[in-house]
Amino acid sequence: MQSDFETDSVRPNIPEYSILIIFGASGDLTRRKLMPGLYHLSRESLLPEYFSVIGIGRRIQLGEEFILHMQNRVRQYCSHDMEGRYWKPLASKMSSIRADYKEEATYETIKQKILSLREEWGNQPNILYYLATSPSHFELIVEKLANHNLHNETGDSWIRLIIEKPFGLDYNSAEQLNSRITKHFTENQIFRIDHFLGKEAVQNILIFRMSNVIFQPLWTREYIDHIQITSAETIGVEGRADYFEQTGAIRDMIQSHLLQILAFLTMDFPQDLNPENIRDEKVKLLKAIRRYSVEEVSKYLVRGQYTEGVVNSELIQKYVDEDGINPQSKVETYAAIKLFIDNYRWRGIPFYLRTGKRMPSRKAEIYIQLKQPEKSEIARIFSHKAPITNSIRLEIQPRAGVDITMGWKSTGILSDIESTQLTIGGKADIAEPKAYERLLVDAMVGDSTLFPRYDEIQELWQIVDPFLKYCEIAKEENIDTLFLYPAGTQGPVEANNFIDGEDNHWTEI
Amino acid sequence: MQSDFETDSVRPNIPEYSILIIFGASGDLTRRKLMPGLYHLSRESLLPEYFSVIGIGRRIQLGEEFILHMQNRVRQYCSHDMEGRYWKPLASKMSSIRADYKEEATYETIKQKILSLREEWGNQPNILYYLATSPSHFELIVEKLANHNLHNETGDSWIRLIIEKPFGLDYNSAEQLNSRITKHFTENQIFRIDHFLGKEAVQNILIFRMSNVIFQPLWTREYIDHIQITSAETIGVEGRADYFEQTGAIRDMIQSHLLQILAFLTMDFPQDLNPENIRDEKVKLLKAIRRYSVEEVSKYLVRGQYTEGVVNSELIQKYVDEDGINPQSKVETYAAIKLFIDNYRWRGIPFYLRTGKRMPSRKAEIYIQLKQPEKSEIARIFSHKAPITNSIRLEIQPRAGVDITMGWKSTGILSDIESTQLTIGGKADIAEPKAYERLLVDAMVGDSTLFPRYDEIQELWQIVDPFLKYCEIAKEENIDTLFLYPAGTQGPVEANNFIDGEDNHWTEI
Repeated sequence: MQSDFETDSVRPNIPEYSILIIFGASGDLTRRKLMPGLYHLSRESLLPEYFSVIGIGRRIQLGEEFILHMQNRVRQYCSHDMEGRYWKPLASKMSSIRADYKEEATYETIKQKILSLREEWGNQPNILYYLATSPSHFELIVEKLANHNLHNETGDSWIRLIIEKPFGLDYNSAEQLNSRITKHFTENQIFRIDHFLGKEAVQNILIFRMSNVIFQPLWTREYIDHIQITSAETIGVEGRADYFEQTGAIRDMIQSHLLQILAFLTMDFPQDLNPENIRDEKVKLLKAIRRYSVEEVSKYLVRGQYTEGVVNSELIQKYVDEDGINPQSKVETYAAIKLFIDNYRWRGIPFYLRTGKRMPSRKAEIYIQLKQPEKSEIARIFSHKAPITNSIRLEIQPRAGVDITMGWKSTGILSDIESTQLTIGGKADIAEPKAYERLLVDAMVGDSTLFPRYDEIQELWQIVDPFLKYCEIAKEENIDTLFLYPAGTQGPVEANNFIDGEDNHWTEI
Repeated sequence: MQSDFETDSVRPNIPEYSILIIFGASGDLTRRKLMPGLYHLSRESLLPEYFSVIGIGRRIQLGEEFILHMQNRVRQYCSHDMEGRYWKPLASKMSSIRADYKEEATYETIKQKILSLREEWGNQPNILYYLATSPSHFELIVEKLANHNLHNETGDSWIRLIIEKPFGLDYNSAEQLNSRITKHFTENQIFRIDHFLGKEAVQNILIFRMSNVIFQPLWTREYIDHIQITSAETIGVEGRADYFEQTGAIRDMIQSHLLQILAFLTMDFPQDLNPENIRDEKVKLLKAIRRYSVEEVSKYLVRGQYTEGVVNSELIQKYVDEDGINPQSKVETYAAIKLFIDNYRWRGIPFYLRTGKRMPSRKAEIYIQLKQPEKSEIARIFSHKAPITNSIRLEIQPRAGVDITMGWKSTGILSDIESTQLTIGGKADIAEPKAYERLLVDAMVGDSTLFPRYDEIQELWQIVDPFLKYCEIAKEENIDTLFLYPAGTQGPVEANNFIDGEDNHWTEI
């Protein structure tokens, strides 16, 4: 087995005497992402000796039953290489508490558990609380932890809080949530997770830019025509109907993942890789994104909702017929927005962010289209062919990769030009828990690079709020701003001409 | 069979009523390059109906014997697809004249032949003379053609002259040769052949540059660290000992092929693809190449000669032991030179041109090394790895291709960077006659783009003359300036540190 860590690099060291306490451990995220992530860390011998994982949930299994249940889940999600010898060390560190987040007794039990581990280890433990519950519990849990004095760091040990997205539902609710949390926890203790930032290719964006001088001069409005950022899913709401009905595609994908990608892609270089310096640059970039008024939004948005169709040869019912969805729902399952970055580097260049459910394929990618070389001149010189469009495609999903499209002389006596591609193919991300695995390690190591700071979250909501407000008003006033698209298609046809420039169009999903 | 011409491009039209007269038709070039080239043209249905090929030589076969002999040669060099139905149309157009270039009767015979074709066709023929003889006959043949009034164009028909390289042996002899030829032929009638310019990848250089905006901003001293142009052969002199003893590697490869490649690679863009405009830009570039004094040359040159060694598992004797080579020969079989282009775009950037016989592999390529991105900064940020060097490699031989080396995040939790390659692989140039095939067509069509104009030739000799003079003086004064290298190695070890910059080195041959 090839280890991902067999490089000449420094290994990340998770501190000894660390406890991971997962609220919502009977939920989907824990079994699908967190446990497989922990298993991978165990396999890589990255878990410290003095380490404990405590799952908390209202309907959670207890004792051996909990461990067996999790083992089955891990086998399901990493079946390709589940091995007992890597599972056992992790299993021996796992336990669970069946409890209600509202009850004071829950937190006393947690405190007792921590104290007993402290006694057993002879050291004050570090504690990482992972809030994997519904967002509606975030404030309550934080409050109770504080009431029971489970939030104060003592000596060298740390106490940290990972909060799953969404962080609020708009600017105002995020402000409220943050003020409640920061009453008790400092910004340094808070790790707001965006698992997209844990993906190989997303991390690679900045490194790719910084380590390749070849792209430096191109990265401006002088050479770039426009940029498209796409995240398409084949799945629907998959049992998360309640969540999605409250959220919609704009909040779920654009506010978080796609804007984060845009920031990494277009920000100026930080002075170094210090997390604060990187986040400073991201905030600077986000501040430069043009803010629209609610009245303007309709020019920069196409929303859609899927109807019946076929995805991967499977018949799909329409969104409003899915389990748990309001039959009159006006929630968008597709959204495309157009943004501008009003700074020296990017002024005038359009950025297109697009996401959709029930698309023909699962794909996340960045497409950077370069301006055409002296368009009229080249067209005249090579009169028999349209001019070549250079582009750089950074693929995030299903594989991490890059390809560059360029002009190349076709073989033969004539000076014909054809379009061809240079490709780096990464491996497909079969092991998706990777993103969580990395983020868990980062949080325990204390590296906040990949976790949005609150001032970022503020900017993200400010950019997206007018879009949300527009949808809300449309809903209240019963104005139909939602275009339908059959499942398995490229989205509503109304989005076809969304890209400026007569020869420009969306990349194929 | 896939035709190279099955594109949507305009087909090149060789004019009807054309005669190709080859002087030196019993020689190596005719059977290895010209005849296979003509066969390919026939296969592509590119030969006009009224067309004639006349071979002239002192020991040439006549009638059916000539045709059979040529057929066997073509079969030998394009055996993979020799087909009678394509050979027959060509064979029916072929004839030969056994004659001495010195005798007046030879030219009378040629005249009669032309007159009889004129009568048969009812049209004044176009005539292309191909001087495939030893250079020592060039002046004589041109003189005699003129004496017999075989050089004057009448009406719309043309008379052209292809002259094989070398065009002179230095600046003075080239001047003399040119003045003799231009006494009778105009510059427009003269096509000086450099078959390297007929190669796919060489033609591609300019197209590649012009049609890809992605490379535009990089193509200056701001982003490029240095450029290497290499042409390595595994063969030795292969029966051309006399020629090579007079010529040497500098004259044979650098003066012609490698400087031409350098010019296409670094010249400013012409206003359009008009041959005169392209050649104007080449001349402008060549004029900007720094001229060295004979005294300076030793700093910018490493010469070598091969000794015993092994190439492709075959034992190779030393150069001076080869058939026809002077045992005391001081002729170089390897040469590396360093040049500067003193213009705004390239000032200060070194260009390395290298050629050698009996190298480990047959290879021609351009290697463009980019400057490192903020070297110290990147080295500090990614402290566990050396900074990535970006490079662009244009492969000319054995395959036409491009690859780009860039930094890419290695898979795993750490932000490690590894070096990786994007590649366009062309097809291997198994059908080398292509270059001649193209150049023959171009000459008959009248496209002089790929034929050096005389002012180019002047510049080429002026650049190279000091190097030749230096070698000559060393020889006369018996100073040893030649380093030995075993056949099958990378050349003399004395060339190892020829490339400036501590981390820089030659590409592997």
